[in-house]
Amino acid sequence: MKNYNISIIKGDGIGPEIVDEAIKVLNSASKKCGFTLSYKEYLMGGIAIDTTGVPLPQETIDGVLASDACLFGAIGGEKWDTLPRELRPETGLLKFREEMGVYANLRPAIVYDELVNASTLKPEVIQGCDIMVVRELIGGIYFGKPRENDGFKAYNTMVYTKPEIERISKTAFELAMKRDKRVCSVDKANVLEVSQLWRDTVNEVAKNYPEVEVSHMYVDNAAMQLVRNPKQFDVIVTGNIFGDILSDTASMVVGSIGLLPSASTGDKTAIYEPIHGSAPDIAGLGIANPLATILSASMMLRYSLNEEKAANLIEDTIKIVLKDGYRTKDLASYDAKEVLNCSAMGDKIVEYI
Amino acid sequence: MKNYNISIIKGDGIGPEIVDEAIKVLNSASKKCGFTLSYKEYLMGGIAIDTTGVPLPQETIDGVLASDACLFGAIGGEKWDTLPRELRPETGLLKFREEMGVYANLRPAIVYDELVNASTLKPEVIQGCDIMVVRELIGGIYFGKPRENDGFKAYNTMVYTKPEIERISKTAFELAMKRDKRVCSVDKANVLEVSQLWRDTVNEVAKNYPEVEVSHMYVDNAAMQLVRNPKQFDVIVTGNIFGDILSDTASMVVGSIGLLPSASTGDKTAIYEPIHGSAPDIAGLGIANPLATILSASMMLRYSLNEEKAANLIEDTIKIVLKDGYRTKDLASYDAKEVLNCSAMGDKIVEYI
Ligand SMILES: CC(C)[C@H](C(=O)O)[C@@H](O)C(=O)O
Ligand SMILES: CC(C)[C@H](C(=O)O)[C@@H](O)C(=O)O
Repeated sequence: MKNYNISIIKGDGIGPEIVDEAIKVLNSASKKCGFTLSYKEYLMGGIAIDTTGVPLPQETIDGVLASDACLFGAIGGEKWDTLPRELRPETGLLKFREEMGVYANLRPAIVYDELVNASTLKPEVIQGCDIMVVRELIGGIYFGKPRENDGFKAYNTMVYTKPEIERISKTAFELAMKRDKRVCSVDKANVLEVSQLWRDTVNEVAKNYPEVEVSHMYVDNAAMQLVRNPKQFDVIVTGNIFGDILSDTASMVVGSIGLLPSASTGDKTAIYEPIHGSAPDIAGLGIANPLATILSASMMLRYSLNEEKAANLIEDTIKIVLKDGYRTKDLASYDAKEVLNCSAMGDKIVEYI
Repeated sequence: MKNYNISIIKGDGIGPEIVDEAIKVLNSASKKCGFTLSYKEYLMGGIAIDTTGVPLPQETIDGVLASDACLFGAIGGEKWDTLPRELRPETGLLKFREEMGVYANLRPAIVYDELVNASTLKPEVIQGCDIMVVRELIGGIYFGKPRENDGFKAYNTMVYTKPEIERISKTAFELAMKRDKRVCSVDKANVLEVSQLWRDTVNEVAKNYPEVEVSHMYVDNAAMQLVRNPKQFDVIVTGNIFGDILSDTASMVVGSIGLLPSASTGDKTAIYEPIHGSAPDIAGLGIANPLATILSASMMLRYSLNEEKAANLIEDTIKIVLKDGYRTKDLASYDAKEVLNCSAMGDKIVEYI
């Protein structure tokens, strides 16, 4: 029987609870589909600071790189926010992304019919919406140098090279080929030189995908269009900071942040994590929603392990569980038949599988 | 009788039509309130390129600086989009802002009860919403140097100095004092050095306004919160590019972009303009909505000329005209009793005044 080695980073806050449910579901789906998964746990974020003194131990870097893929919970919390910048959980996270070479952050925003009322947007505006935001994750202004703050003047550098733009564009076009074949590239080319290179390079890569319709949008307009008419989008591709902003805007189209998974992929390994944070305020109460993490696990099956059948099984099961009226507390006001706690939701999905 | 000198830039596309209506309304309100306005027209944008060869003639710079305030329509259009960067309408616009020293861009987003259905957001989410976005307009990554695109690598610099952040913060806190006394500063201080200086400086300025409640939000979260719960905001203050994105997001809270005015103010002069563009596709058809320009004119009365009474008169009149069911074509689907063309809407407001 085929076996995959999965590295696990549970992290802080609700991280451990939600990852535990995802593992439960992974085990059940893999059993059903005839493969096995082995897990190894690593530390990162606040818990790593408390245990080892640094937010990202070398052991974690090596362990994840050696694994087939990484399932990630969430990190951070107020407790560590006042540490010097180089010791903060966020700094560990950015270094982790860089070390793993995960240049492509994929954030699907899919509106489930059952939860069409969970968004603050009108149902008719979002029903059937299925957007994939592809965000460049290890370049741009996040990592650009020089960067400095001398207390009087401070600056950062938004920088991209052609190869960086080419590889993320390829990711976007390849994804579009398996979807509705439309890519909208977002930049600010009317103002920024770095965006002009972005736009020109996307256009060059587009030539290799004649079947894909490519369009360009300024970032201010894109933010507006995501609220005005999100259904116009199939794949959105953009740089690191614009992607940070727009993928959060797109998540509001879905409304329920507890449902949103993500994949960060590259040439070395891939990391799968919910887009929500560690929510320290509800940690340990058992009321966290594990669905975003379970959906992240199913993205892992699809993109890293090529176990499409198991991925579909999980996603279809979640749809049925939602259709049957099972909800976690965050979704309790949307046609709930029964409200389940975190581990009961995991159990319910396993039961249905 | 008091007289003010107003410089007028009609610009391209629908610019001339909408500015003409605003002038009509200004004349009627000033007459009612006992002062006069003299107008002098200047060229900018596409029409300036066609007439003088450059998007921003020196005469325009000098003329506007010598005036009490500038009322601005809209510029740009496809016709000029393929010109070299230094000749494009946008380049003229950015140079204009810089030359005029208008560092503070104010964009109110007010939801009118009559048009609460015009937004894609649910009525209960936006009803009563009244946000003022204060965007730094002549600094940040828009103007930062060095900037370059050599075809392989391209970069821009996001830079702020303490005095730049101090003056825009003051603008925000002063505005908050006349409103609900809450300022939310938006940055990305968990990643960017320039944002850390921004945050620290806002906190220093905040000490001079003990009555104002100050909060900080990361830009990704702010984009999300504007969709999730826009009513939580009073004044938002942020840098140039984040403000570009967030003010467009905020405009979607209102929904009808034809209703949104803006003011760009500084120590030398101020520019008042609708946030929508020049809409070349409907230029000359007489169906443009002049309300955003008329509301910009009323901001001019309030902020530059201190004619609060006339400003209130215009704003109250517009509310009544909307309440009575008069709509322009773009708003025709929201409880219209009668759909008016551009100049008939101007006339109607004059009639009510
Ligand atoms: C925590 C922060 C550094 C991070 C980012 O900005 O990338 C987060 O917002 C995200 O989107 O994963
Ligand atoms: C046209 C463009 C340069 C401009 C900007 O980005 O400032 C516009 O989007 C705006 O917000 O006024």
